[in-house]
Amino acid sequence: MRVSPGGRPATGYDIVLQAGVLRETAAFLTDRLPDCRAAVVVTDGNLRDLAAPLTDALRGVGVASALHVVEPGEKSKSLESLHGIYGTLLDLKADRRACVIAVGGGVVGDLAGFAAASYMRGVSLIQVPTSLLAMVDSSVGGKTGVNLPRGKNLVGAFHQPAGVLVDPDVLRTLPDREYHGGLAEVVKYGVISDAAFFGWLEENAGAILDRDPAVLVPLIARCCELKAAVVAADEFETTGVRATLNYGHTFAHAFENLAGYGVLSHGEAVSVGMTCAARLAVSRGMIPPDVLTRQTALLERFRLPIELPAAVEAPPDAVLAAMRSDKKNVAGALRLVLPVRLGEVRVFADVPEEQVTAALTP
Amino acid sequence: MRVSPGGRPATGYDIVLQAGVLRETAAFLTDRLPDCRAAVVVTDGNLRDLAAPLTDALRGVGVASALHVVEPGEKSKSLESLHGIYGTLLDLKADRRACVIAVGGGVVGDLAGFAAASYMRGVSLIQVPTSLLAMVDSSVGGKTGVNLPRGKNLVGAFHQPAGVLVDPDVLRTLPDREYHGGLAEVVKYGVISDAAFFGWLEENAGAILDRDPAVLVPLIARCCELKAAVVAADEFETTGVRATLNYGHTFAHAFENLAGYGVLSHGEAVSVGMTCAARLAVSRGMIPPDVLTRQTALLERFRLPIELPAAVEAPPDAVLAAMRSDKKNVAGALRLVLPVRLGEVRVFADVPEEQVTAALTP
Repeated sequence: MRVSPGGRPATGYDIVLQAGVLRETAAFLTDRLPDCRAAVVVTDGNLRDLAAPLTDALRGVGVASALHVVEPGEKSKSLESLHGIYGTLLDLKADRRACVIAVGGGVVGDLAGFAAASYMRGVSLIQVPTSLLAMVDSSVGGKTGVNLPRGKNLVGAFHQPAGVLVDPDVLRTLPDREYHGGLAEVVKYGVISDAAFFGWLEENAGAILDRDPAVLVPLIARCCELKAAVVAADEFETTGVRATLNYGHTFAHAFENLAGYGVLSHGEAVSVGMTCAARLAVSRGMIPPDVLTRQTALLERFRLPIELPAAVEAPPDAVLAAMRSDKKNVAGALRLVLPVRLGEVRVFADVPEEQVTAALTP
Repeated sequence: MRVSPGGRPATGYDIVLQAGVLRETAAFLTDRLPDCRAAVVVTDGNLRDLAAPLTDALRGVGVASALHVVEPGEKSKSLESLHGIYGTLLDLKADRRACVIAVGGGVVGDLAGFAAASYMRGVSLIQVPTSLLAMVDSSVGGKTGVNLPRGKNLVGAFHQPAGVLVDPDVLRTLPDREYHGGLAEVVKYGVISDAAFFGWLEENAGAILDRDPAVLVPLIARCCELKAAVVAADEFETTGVRATLNYGHTFAHAFENLAGYGVLSHGEAVSVGMTCAARLAVSRGMIPPDVLTRQTALLERFRLPIELPAAVEAPPDAVLAAMRSDKKNVAGALRLVLPVRLGEVRVFADVPEEQVTAALTP
């Protein structure tokens, strides 16, 4: 599958989706980046055994390499972790032809991606996403970045990878909660841009929950296609097209903020956020209640929450305040992505705040 | 003057070269960035009085603004300083339409430029260079970055400004040593790409030393044109064209390293480096000795050194080792930019190291 950000074929790259492709990483690198002589493999402590063999394989093809392991979890997306990766690159005497290989979920991909974007003003990046969320979402599209103590993803760059290697085999060992969280973004693609895909998800929900390779490959491929099409239309998030990917996310970011990171997974927050967004669209008469009903049924089938856990304190005013500080907003106006039918969303900047708070509860 | 990096008109920007234009910064911003509602003016302690009035002017046109002052000097080009600028942007609740305005020399421009490149994955940047070096070199071309403890400019991005405002009036108060240092890069443009300009510099050397506005404006304009043409041909330093700007610099970076930063100004190091490079070209029979003689005479006229001060210990082996670690090298081979005639240079990767060390001394 070929991705051309902003429609520029010169910066295009391949997504290779194939069982076992993780073990082909070194061959992919020498094929696509023949001048590369040094590569740092970034991963987290949970994935060390998966990632470690890559450094041997790289040395086998004449590429100096090192494994850089960060702590699992969001707190590794920091300027300090970034500094650590720069150090490993310098230890390898990595020059501008070097490559960073991110083996992990969204945290590792975002962190390693920004290291690649900024080391010597940009070196190559290969993404090897290991979580469903990273496969269908964060590894495609070129967004990279780290958090600051004052907020998430406040520092970063758009940096397209030289390639994305998706190995569905690695999903076998993904913890259930992470796998289900990834399905929230999968459901999102159906609602925002492909009603037929949404129907396919409903029909195959059982096999999807069973992680049947026969459904996983077409599932991931379709999500990557849908995301790549959006990215091609709006690489730098300037035309508004890319904003459609944010369906449910303005609510979700507020929920994650209020819950404290880690209490609610990103996918769980998105699931609740999409429920609020669809409910809001129903209340405004933009979609029939049936769309909300089908979305809710599918999310629940995928073991995802459709309301906040009782332990999360989220009074409407606090949710609104957190939503207002979302960085997707422009000049302080709340921008919401809402469905206008199953398979299509639009961005609205004129929703009265009372309607937003009313949509927080059934 | 219009600059189109990589020949892409969509990302082009204006260089406005005009006495007094510094005071027009707020008007320029509202004209070019009508959606901008927040701007941080970054400057250093020496330039506070020059930069401070801009924040009032910005508030006068409805743009929330703050002055962010860093310590003068190279040590401010750090990840820590960057973090400080992010903090000021967050204090202003700066969103993606925000702008960073860099008022200063190369250090402020590189630091503020990288803050703009990375805050929320990229906000707008206006460069207001106040040193001759920044006017003719670092403010044009989109290079931004900071140092790491282990080396200069190891982290950064290519980020083109929304505009560059060059006010020759501010050169009146520039310290002599800094002004002369800037002239080293001016001489460089003549040698690498414009023999007629080199002749013009020789003819007008007296007026140039006197900082006569009648010669400063055409001087800065020609340097910016020459640099912009190189950047247009090779925005991301991938084709080798941009490498020609590095004439004298592989030597210079080694000298700066060995001397310890601050002992030798960048311009002084470049002056000695160009002398070594031209001497090397003469010794290889690539140019007649006359080119070296004229270059040396002009550099000395501009009060620039053509050999290292006695206090700097730079044994040939140490110079070579430092040159080998230059990040412009590819896979460890020394790449040198050498003149083939006055007004033209080429990149050579096959110069024997004995010839390089022989060229270090007359």
